[in-house]
Amino acid sequence: MTKIRRIILTEQEMPRQWYNLAADVKCPPFMSPNGPVPPEAWAPVFPMNLVEQEYSTQRWIDIPEEVLSLLTRWRPAPMHRAYDLERALGTPARIYYKNESLSPCGSHKPNTAVVQAWYNKQAGTKRLTTETGAGQWGSALAFACSLIGLDCKVFMVRVSYGQKPLPKLMMQTWGAQCVPSPSMETQAGRAVLEQDPDTPGSLGIAISEAIEAAVTDPKGQTKYALGSVLNHVMLHQTIIGLEAKKQLEKAGEKLPDIVIGCAGGGSNFAGLSFPFVYDKIHGSKIEIIPVEPASCPSLTRGHYVYDHGDNAKMTPLVAMHSLGHNFIPAPIHAGGLRYHGMSPLVSRAVEDGLMSPRAINQLECYEAGMLFARTEGIIPAPESCHAIAATIQEAKKAKEEGKEKVILFNLSGHGLFDLLGYEKFMNGQLTDYELPQEIIDKNHEVLAGYPLP
Amino acid sequence: MTKIRRIILTEQEMPRQWYNLAADVKCPPFMSPNGPVPPEAWAPVFPMNLVEQEYSTQRWIDIPEEVLSLLTRWRPAPMHRAYDLERALGTPARIYYKNESLSPCGSHKPNTAVVQAWYNKQAGTKRLTTETGAGQWGSALAFACSLIGLDCKVFMVRVSYGQKPLPKLMMQTWGAQCVPSPSMETQAGRAVLEQDPDTPGSLGIAISEAIEAAVTDPKGQTKYALGSVLNHVMLHQTIIGLEAKKQLEKAGEKLPDIVIGCAGGGSNFAGLSFPFVYDKIHGSKIEIIPVEPASCPSLTRGHYVYDHGDNAKMTPLVAMHSLGHNFIPAPIHAGGLRYHGMSPLVSRAVEDGLMSPRAINQLECYEAGMLFARTEGIIPAPESCHAIAATIQEAKKAKEEGKEKVILFNLSGHGLFDLLGYEKFMNGQLTDYELPQEIIDKNHEVLAGYPLP
Repeated sequence: MTKIRRIILTEQEMPRQWYNLAADVKCPPFMSPNGPVPPEAWAPVFPMNLVEQEYSTQRWIDIPEEVLSLLTRWRPAPMHRAYDLERALGTPARIYYKNESLSPCGSHKPNTAVVQAWYNKQAGTKRLTTETGAGQWGSALAFACSLIGLDCKVFMVRVSYGQKPLPKLMMQTWGAQCVPSPSMETQAGRAVLEQDPDTPGSLGIAISEAIEAAVTDPKGQTKYALGSVLNHVMLHQTIIGLEAKKQLEKAGEKLPDIVIGCAGGGSNFAGLSFPFVYDKIHGSKIEIIPVEPASCPSLTRGHYVYDHGDNAKMTPLVAMHSLGHNFIPAPIHAGGLRYHGMSPLVSRAVEDGLMSPRAINQLECYEAGMLFARTEGIIPAPESCHAIAATIQEAKKAKEEGKEKVILFNLSGHGLFDLLGYEKFMNGQLTDYELPQEIIDKNHEVLAGYPLP
Repeated sequence: MTKIRRIILTEQEMPRQWYNLAADVKCPPFMSPNGPVPPEAWAPVFPMNLVEQEYSTQRWIDIPEEVLSLLTRWRPAPMHRAYDLERALGTPARIYYKNESLSPCGSHKPNTAVVQAWYNKQAGTKRLTTETGAGQWGSALAFACSLIGLDCKVFMVRVSYGQKPLPKLMMQTWGAQCVPSPSMETQAGRAVLEQDPDTPGSLGIAISEAIEAAVTDPKGQTKYALGSVLNHVMLHQTIIGLEAKKQLEKAGEKLPDIVIGCAGGGSNFAGLSFPFVYDKIHGSKIEIIPVEPASCPSLTRGHYVYDHGDNAKMTPLVAMHSLGHNFIPAPIHAGGLRYHGMSPLVSRAVEDGLMSPRAINQLECYEAGMLFARTEGIIPAPESCHAIAATIQEAKKAKEEGKEKVILFNLSGHGLFDLLGYEKFMNGQLTDYELPQEIIDKNHEVLAGYPLP
């Protein structure tokens, strides 16, 4: 066959271990007023088997057999060669993408949701709570809990809850309960609603509510699950990049020149890129680009500080790039990228010069998504459009330079729940949001109270 | 690994030929007032390379290399072992399903859309018209035209156009034009609207409009594409069953005992089942079950007659099971199964005793779909829920009989665009529709004017 458009792995070729970047990149510890936070302090929030992963600096961590079997519901995920996008751009670059849109939830999120649900089940948890922005994480956890036999409650950022009714229905079909956040069900939610009854909500607020709902369970059988940011979440997602490595080899390529993923909390980006960061640390020349929305630019305009992961300061302090835990981003359609902070591992890797973050505006991203849909045939999630936009920038640069670069990006999810956003884009109703420097400066003043050690 | 939940084929293992059931099952010819319709008569409607396939009785037809390459965008499709559904049912049956929900449109429809667009492009066509019910076929043709470089116009049954805004947006994202049918753009549409301005529309009406829009192109560069019913459409879909055969073998199974698919016009059912009909003709004992909605029961309560494929009688007479070309089915959510007729090959195979059709009511289908979502993790299209409901019936029967049967069904598409239907089901707002015998009898009187030779 002249052009095989997908490179497939069999189940037998699936990675058997996750790669833990914490073995190679050293993050400052979680901090509290009493000093570094010991693992035991997390016990009310997470089961100890996951806390252990969170603190682990072991480079390779075995994937349990049963977890592997669960992952075969939708993995290994194919890697595509973007022949038609290349042709449309007239680029000498060879573009590959990992297709994480084929999971039953349509995104990469189940890669960790199913794992977290499984470890919780092992530890005796009966019920999980979480937050969700665009709905991808919430539906992934609902899916995972349904399969593994746990109750599930999801606090969904209100602006997305209104914009996107379908993810909520997915969660309900899988048996989960989904409420808009801020809600009246938690102290954290009520406090925000008192101050601003019309707030669009934020991931930071929803996280506060979900943690509160977990730790206040009098029976102690409810735990909280986070869909991004933390080390154990990044760990589970590395299966993406580990598969991609094998697939690039099957496609006859060596290492890629450029690796790209969109970054909100960092999980799909980390999943694809961390196994290549390992190669970069060991001397390979790879450009690794996390792409964020210009309206929520934690990596490119935020500061590397100690900050809370949530609005109500229920989490310990985390060393990360942040726009401030009170930051409420503009209501762009890429709901999954509207988070004030960033994965500590991604943040640290950026500080260490291992990654080159980039911010792109909404309109350029939708334009990239439209071109992708009409060449590669898959309608991408607005989040993934950020990765596509950066890929197109790099492919054009390769054309200018006349270089045959290999570009690999992560198609983190499909855009079937975001078609109303595409409609607005096609009708010229979307705009870019500029984030005024004053807001960033003002938040930074506040954050100056949380200095890094 | 203890339980591998999916059986994967590589591109190298893809079938290289389609199976043509017309070599083994003999259908009466298309008929007009002047006698049998010769191939040339189709020239204004279809390109001659597809007409040739429509009339072919050659058993195996080569898949062109370039078409194979296009199909690798989403094929081969995985086959899943439904371990968790089996466990929930406590059945000794081993249940497998082909997962056709993973195409960029979320259904099996691109299997023929891309092929038809490719043959049209070869023949010099510039623009395709078609109809769509639930939107799956329309979006598949929009997808195909976008990739292959043809203009595309879709007439969408009005009741679905209103119920389901997202497929329309998919078509637009892929650059196609989508209008509700009946429309004021065609004679056929205007005639219906004059009689009943509030008509919900039907596939029969939309077909009339799409054919009219094609054949009235003064430049003759517009052709029509049909997403089901005709022999060449069934032919292209047989890649499903041909892949499934290889996958069953990989799973260590011989032939299945039971093969199940939902049937509206017949294409996904034919795609999975025809390669097994071949085995049945050659002596294997296989039960083959097309499943239709009780409210649109062409195979189980319609008559095997000569009837038109469309409302305005623009098509020749087709020997098939029909409820009458004026039949307007109840607005059930399985829009893809609301067609008055049936594939002539499926109809003839039923008459020949090769298949055992079954009708199932809406509520039982949704209940089956919910169980499937919560065990297998995939939210199925309401159409596919019909196949799941019959599978559950057969799995329970196997339990009663204590028999280890192998059941294979087709998951023709996902239900992400049908979540509002699921919401209604969960809220107890859906009902079953009974089709009164008088309506069938009355239509049959009319059809008596079209006797079979």
